[in-house]
Amino acid sequence: MSNAIAAVILAAGKGTRMKSDLHKVLHPIAGRAMLLHLMDGFAALSPAATVVVVGDKREQVEAALAGTGAVVAVQEPQLGTAHAALQAKAALAGFDGIVLVCFGDCPMLTADTVRRLCGALESGARVAVLGFRPADAAAYGRIIADTDGTVRKMVEYKDASDAERAVDLCNSGVIVAAAADMWRLLEAVGNDNAQGEYYLPDVATGAIAERARVVVIETDAAEVAGVNSRAELAAMEAEWQARRRQAAMDEGATLIAPETVWFAWDTRLGRDVTIEPNVFFGPGVSVADGVRIRAHCHIEGAVIGAGCEVGPYARLRPGTVLGEKAKIGNFVETKKAEIGKGAKANHLTYLGDVSVGAGANIGAGTITCNYDGYFKYRTEIGENAFIGSNSALVAPVRIGRDAIVGAGSAVTRDVGDGELRLVRGEQLVKPGWADRFHDAMRKKKADKQAT
Amino acid sequence: MSNAIAAVILAAGKGTRMKSDLHKVLHPIAGRAMLLHLMDGFAALSPAATVVVVGDKREQVEAALAGTGAVVAVQEPQLGTAHAALQAKAALAGFDGIVLVCFGDCPMLTADTVRRLCGALESGARVAVLGFRPADAAAYGRIIADTDGTVRKMVEYKDASDAERAVDLCNSGVIVAAAADMWRLLEAVGNDNAQGEYYLPDVATGAIAERARVVVIETDAAEVAGVNSRAELAAMEAEWQARRRQAAMDEGATLIAPETVWFAWDTRLGRDVTIEPNVFFGPGVSVADGVRIRAHCHIEGAVIGAGCEVGPYARLRPGTVLGEKAKIGNFVETKKAEIGKGAKANHLTYLGDVSVGAGANIGAGTITCNYDGYFKYRTEIGENAFIGSNSALVAPVRIGRDAIVGAGSAVTRDVGDGELRLVRGEQLVKPGWADRFHDAMRKKKADKQAT
Amino acid sequence: MSNAIAAVILAAGKGTRMKSDLHKVLHPIAGRAMLLHLMDGFAALSPAATVVVVGDKREQVEAALAGTGAVVAVQEPQLGTAHAALQAKAALAGFDGIVLVCFGDCPMLTADTVRRLCGALESGARVAVLGFRPADAAAYGRIIADTDGTVRKMVEYKDASDAERAVDLCNSGVIVAAAADMWRLLEAVGNDNAQGEYYLPDVATGAIAERARVVVIETDAAEVAGVNSRAELAAMEAEWQARRRQAAMDEGATLIAPETVWFAWDTRLGRDVTIEPNVFFGPGVSVADGVRIRAHCHIEGAVIGAGCEVGPYARLRPGTVLGEKAKIGNFVETKKAEIGKGAKANHLTYLGDVSVGAGANIGAGTITCNYDGYFKYRTEIGENAFIGSNSALVAPVRIGRDAIVGAGSAVTRDVGDGELRLVRGEQLVKPGWADRFHDAMRKKKADKQAT
Repeated sequence: MSNAIAAVILAAGKGTRMKSDLHKVLHPIAGRAMLLHLMDGFAALSPAATVVVVGDKREQVEAALAGTGAVVAVQEPQLGTAHAALQAKAALAGFDGIVLVCFGDCPMLTADTVRRLCGALESGARVAVLGFRPADAAAYGRIIADTDGTVRKMVEYKDASDAERAVDLCNSGVIVAAAADMWRLLEAVGNDNAQGEYYLPDVATGAIAERARVVVIETDAAEVAGVNSRAELAAMEAEWQARRRQAAMDEGATLIAPETVWFAWDTRLGRDVTIEPNVFFGPGVSVADGVRIRAHCHIEGAVIGAGCEVGPYARLRPGTVLGEKAKIGNFVETKKAEIGKGAKANHLTYLGDVSVGAGANIGAGTITCNYDGYFKYRTEIGENAFIGSNSALVAPVRIGRDAIVGAGSAVTRDVGDGELRLVRGEQLVKPGWADRFHDAMRKKKADKQAT
Repeated sequence: MSNAIAAVILAAGKGTRMKSDLHKVLHPIAGRAMLLHLMDGFAALSPAATVVVVGDKREQVEAALAGTGAVVAVQEPQLGTAHAALQAKAALAGFDGIVLVCFGDCPMLTADTVRRLCGALESGARVAVLGFRPADAAAYGRIIADTDGTVRKMVEYKDASDAERAVDLCNSGVIVAAAADMWRLLEAVGNDNAQGEYYLPDVATGAIAERARVVVIETDAAEVAGVNSRAELAAMEAEWQARRRQAAMDEGATLIAPETVWFAWDTRLGRDVTIEPNVFFGPGVSVADGVRIRAHCHIEGAVIGAGCEVGPYARLRPGTVLGEKAKIGNFVETKKAEIGKGAKANHLTYLGDVSVGAGANIGAGTITCNYDGYFKYRTEIGENAFIGSNSALVAPVRIGRDAIVGAGSAVTRDVGDGELRLVRGEQLVKPGWADRFHDAMRKKKADKQAT
Repeated sequence: MSNAIAAVILAAGKGTRMKSDLHKVLHPIAGRAMLLHLMDGFAALSPAATVVVVGDKREQVEAALAGTGAVVAVQEPQLGTAHAALQAKAALAGFDGIVLVCFGDCPMLTADTVRRLCGALESGARVAVLGFRPADAAAYGRIIADTDGTVRKMVEYKDASDAERAVDLCNSGVIVAAAADMWRLLEAVGNDNAQGEYYLPDVATGAIAERARVVVIETDAAEVAGVNSRAELAAMEAEWQARRRQAAMDEGATLIAPETVWFAWDTRLGRDVTIEPNVFFGPGVSVADGVRIRAHCHIEGAVIGAGCEVGPYARLRPGTVLGEKAKIGNFVETKKAEIGKGAKANHLTYLGDVSVGAGANIGAGTITCNYDGYFKYRTEIGENAFIGSNSALVAPVRIGRDAIVGAGSAVTRDVGDGELRLVRGEQLVKPGWADRFHDAMRKKKADKQAT
């Protein structure tokens, strides 16, 4: 036996209580599918292979796994968890390391715990199971074990005696064995029970029957919590966020109201970052030192340089890169936008498909017109350029360094370095017209109300 | 006695602790006045009449009741709860069914509980009172009853013996009796007590003195909780929201942070709806299947079609109807806006009094100018029209199907089908002007700082 | 001895666990540095002098103290809390009142508690120390005292016997004595201990050795809570906010979701104010009676008049003054903006360095162009003026009373009273052009996709 690890992830349950067209294991926690969280968890172990056993919605799972190297095995019909695990055998033909069987809807399993399970095999156990002691053992299957962790019996709750039910060590379902042992034991599992199903814990039972050593490794209940409903999904999200917020504060971020900051799975924060209330991070965000993110921001796929000020009400979309000390203010949206050092877009602006030079000032109400209904085009704004308020920059267009665009201009042609571009209509002046208009309309309004 | 029900809702208290110019029973929970929540609660019973007994601020209550069929009776002066209930007698002249007396500031009473109370009358009781067992019985009046629910005594806390105070069954005040019984018993209530008030529980006491059967029906403390302060109002809102969020998740909605989504009393959600954090629903919203509502939205009076994407930072106001797969993006406000299937308004836009055809694209910064200071006017945008960024559409105006409006245009006349409309001023180009301006201003700034 | 008070605030700790370049005592609670909160706490006592003893980052502390009258003393090297307190002696030369020693990272100390401490001195004690009984006494130093408060012994946890550890009265560190006593006792403190430091509690120990009376005054644990990490900072912020929200509701404000409203230390609220969820107040805000603040607002340095409607998504910045019944709507930013009675800016607007007359209507998408990259300029808008949508007002500029600015205008010159100003480009009409464009682009898109 090599000590390589292959993961078999069971994901063939119907997930009926989710009431969703999306496969249960693809529902996200912190912006990432549960299944991928689980795979992240043991990525540090560099598994030789990962097989996800699915029933319905195979295509959704395959799409989510694209690029991960994991493969899908199909369980059809669905005859129980042992039967599900066995569907991975073909995909793991020739693999002679350790097979881990775990659950796609229990995404918090850590590499450390998997290492402890594998360690038990290396210390002579034929099978290791993962146990936990919940606050309320309820109807979980029980693990009857000696104090040294040697498992004497795996027992389903409904089959348990009162004495067995009094045991609070419960079975998480997670199990490891050498590949040869795992397949042999899985194949030996029978379905002589009320449901007529093949149950995974019978792998351990089978090993005990062979007089082999089976051990239980214990972990926290939180690590093996499963998600069966949207409420449980929300609870796991809350638990994940609480831990991430604590970590952010431990690392030197100020969260004025930590319970209202939502991180994504991969958010990176520098030191002395301050985050005001109500900030939502989607995936792909990195925030450098000394940044202040004001209230009500929404940030995805953005790299924020040191000392930047963001928000309130800034919406940074993927492809945003803010240089040092740049400022993105209220009601400003950026997308595929490289903003130079110290550049500012403080108010009511859309910056899409654009590069903005260092020190440039983008006036309130500026819009980069990057779309003609069919294609997207780029705008380039030079260093220290000044874009007057309410301007429309019709891409593709280039505004030179130090150039000035007058307020209210629709710029359709390039503006040269140091050039002023002003697009102005005729100023029509009609003295007294407004007074006459007000009189007429007040009369009309009075007439309408009279009738 | 018919088994029709008439509700007498007491709402004559001063509500001093609310410190408000608004009548206490009109303070809203989930966007709806407490009083109307209470009336919703027993609407399933189709009450034959509803009489709200008020003291101060009668006009406010009458305005709130407009269209409900409920009437107001005035209690003046205010001589106690029994006296208040009796003020409803005239309005219910000729009614011979069951009279329910309840409280306008206890809005969570359910039809099911009222049915159980009425059922007790049908089973031979002359009076039925509603009891509850709070965590802390404190100074509530106690109900001394047999285990079968037969009430032996109603006792105010201050008059209770130690043995009676040890009883944890408390009086909610809610009471039912046949109309003839109710009026007779109310009229017999005296005010020989320290406060000189006529107390409602003496109705039950009077029935007991008549050797008639009085029974207590029990319910949860939460159902009879009252609101006497803004903090209690907030606590009841929180309780209501918690239950509504759980129901939303049970029905198949994903709430990433349920505690930051506020529903209105009548919000309807489809299946596989995802709601990001910080979304506020005002009344009148219906959300179809598969909609994603991103963070920081504010939605009132809107019908959102299947597969739409809304937000972040979308503000949908009353009269918004989004067709299937429409997209309303960030910093976009809609009001009386019918948005066609697949149409998009993704950025910084105001759409008011408008219809937008299927597939149309509304560019960033577009404003429908629907108001001239006196009247509102409509804008019609045809299918697949393309409105360039930063355009002002001066209503009344019609943009044809497939028409294109150039960026930065103020459109004051109709645009034909398939037509291009471009409103452009003269492009003034002043090479070197900006460079000279920068030099001059830098000098001026330096001079100012020097002085 | 006079009964004047001088405060010595110790702030020389490294604050390592904050992981911050900002001095620990300058981290804010409710928008105000902890150190200033502490000084606010005893401001009611009109201290004769305040000395803040600092180590690193002296400049930061000095900058924060500017204008307060407090002075800084430097402790270098840092040899313990008694040594730190002694560094204030020079700054308090000649002062013969009571010296209070307290801690810059324990900002919740109240004037009332300080008064109680000083009262103990007036009643004959030579030294008074502040004790508290935490839920978990953990490793705090213990105060061994008689039931009348006479202190027998101050003992560090590590030196305490089991019997002493069983005492739950802990030492907060806060201490008072007459100046002469304080300096003499501080100078007598030795450093014969494991750390070789001079400990402040030895002041009390020294007084006991002199057979003088030392008393302990008790307070709540919350009042002496310290901040040593960002998580503790967040916890103290949460505690502060919870109390402030309760006070707001007690005074007659409706907070639909109190846990999502963040007040600043100096926010003032009128009666019958309603605040929807997710509203953030920075410093300097005053809200008059009957104001409704809708969800998702961000408000700093603003005076909001009676009956105003603000938000949702309004961002009011410093210098905003809203007249009675003014309306500031969604995606609107104001800064140094005086908005007249009943004036409205409902949508997508930037109002900076501006005065708006009563009854004026600012159309959607209006921008005051107040900045030319070097200086700021003012805009004046007259009473009942009507600014058409998407207009740019290029400051300095004056719009007269009752004037009308046409939609989409960039106004660069003053507009007279009752005048209509319209800036319009040429309307180019190209029938059929859009149809041909669509055809061409669809073909191009198809070609691209084909390759």
